[in-house]
Amino acid sequence: MKQYKGYLIDLDGTMYLGKEPIEAAADFIDALSAKNIPYLFVTNNSSKTQKAVSDKLNAMGIKSTPDKVVTTSLATAKYIKQQKADARCYVIGEEGIYHALEKEGLIIAEENCDFVVAGIDRAINYEKLAQACIEVRNGATFISTNSDIAIPTERGLLPGNGALTSVITVSTGKKPIFIGKPERIIMDEAVEMLGLPKADTLMVGDNYNTDIRAGINAGIDTLMVFTGVTPFGELESLEKRPDYYVQSLREWTDKI
Amino acid sequence: MKQYKGYLIDLDGTMYLGKEPIEAAADFIDALSAKNIPYLFVTNNSSKTQKAVSDKLNAMGIKSTPDKVVTTSLATAKYIKQQKADARCYVIGEEGIYHALEKEGLIIAEENCDFVVAGIDRAINYEKLAQACIEVRNGATFISTNSDIAIPTERGLLPGNGALTSVITVSTGKKPIFIGKPERIIMDEAVEMLGLPKADTLMVGDNYNTDIRAGINAGIDTLMVFTGVTPFGELESLEKRPDYYVQSLREWTDKI
Repeated sequence: MKQYKGYLIDLDGTMYLGKEPIEAAADFIDALSAKNIPYLFVTNNSSKTQKAVSDKLNAMGIKSTPDKVVTTSLATAKYIKQQKADARCYVIGEEGIYHALEKEGLIIAEENCDFVVAGIDRAINYEKLAQACIEVRNGATFISTNSDIAIPTERGLLPGNGALTSVITVSTGKKPIFIGKPERIIMDEAVEMLGLPKADTLMVGDNYNTDIRAGINAGIDTLMVFTGVTPFGELESLEKRPDYYVQSLREWTDKI
Repeated sequence: MKQYKGYLIDLDGTMYLGKEPIEAAADFIDALSAKNIPYLFVTNNSSKTQKAVSDKLNAMGIKSTPDKVVTTSLATAKYIKQQKADARCYVIGEEGIYHALEKEGLIIAEENCDFVVAGIDRAINYEKLAQACIEVRNGATFISTNSDIAIPTERGLLPGNGALTSVITVSTGKKPIFIGKPERIIMDEAVEMLGLPKADTLMVGDNYNTDIRAGINAGIDTLMVFTGVTPFGELESLEKRPDYYVQSLREWTDKI
């Protein structure tokens, strides 16, 4: 089996489940760290800053630093900056997306925007959606941090950003550019940050439709772990199987 | 040309444009009234009560009474009552839908609901959408007052109920039963209230995709007027043309 020189690793379902760490996660990261193998966490979460995500991981005993966390907000901000360095952005979202856009020097504005950026926003309201529709109809490029339709919570599955985004899509008839997994955009950003060839990189995740498809779409080998969203029973019926799979990351730690 | 014994008439774009009456509207209604031809107004508006809509018409000199107004809220409430007379309903919407459901004796509740009812709600928030998703996932029948994707306002096209509804559709994967035009449900309610055979009834409206399709779907003859949404230029390319069309209702008043 191939020795990978760098890892891209999903968070929810792979490193933790909501507020609980997954048992094998800390050891897995320690093993990478012990062998000086670089890794980045790649998350569709747009609501938190890199530091907030990193702090959460450290509190669970999983070694991280803010610059090891690639959020969809970070990838969105970098993507927009590449298109237009002084872009005006109309933003729907929480702390993470505002922080990332500002950090890249982009302008957050209420009208005459170049981009409409939609991320999960649990303070969503009609006015925000209305202005976003107006900006998109006026020609702003419509970007959505990720297409996740539901967020697992203790209360059940609540609407995800892909569901909120659909208000603007349905009303204006314009489809957004999605940044997060399974799209290539976040993966290409992560690969660039990791600084290694794709052929030497492994994408690790639990969710076939986001993590594994992201690896496939980006041309990166994949390791699937059955501690999260996609049940083992679905493996046989998958359209294209991951390169490797394990029930627990514990099975992989010795192979690092 | 056929003499119709009853009329179903759209409001916005046919009787008025936003806050302004359409010039020929009052005379058109007066002509029906003078010949004792019964008529009902059929609107996809779910936010206002029948009385509020009727008051607006009267203030414009267009003869109406509350019982001449068929809103999607009224049609929704009657539809649900037919399914289950003491149904528990989780409601997203404004005054009109609450009023209509309560008037039919239905129970407005926060959980364990038989139906989720989504109407336009300019006080929409994440919690309302979240609870609606939970109820739908728990088996509640999902109903949406209408599928209109945009609302014309002085500010531009703002998100309509069909756009807001899509959050629940996309997140849960369950499509709603739509009540309003172009669906048959509101038309069948209106025909029943009018108490005349469909063959003697004419549907009048400006919007091909809602009003005229509603007539076609319900098997009712249609009169299209070009004072609203659908421009005259589109007539040639319509999939199925209306039975009659006029530039202004003034052209039809003599034929009543």
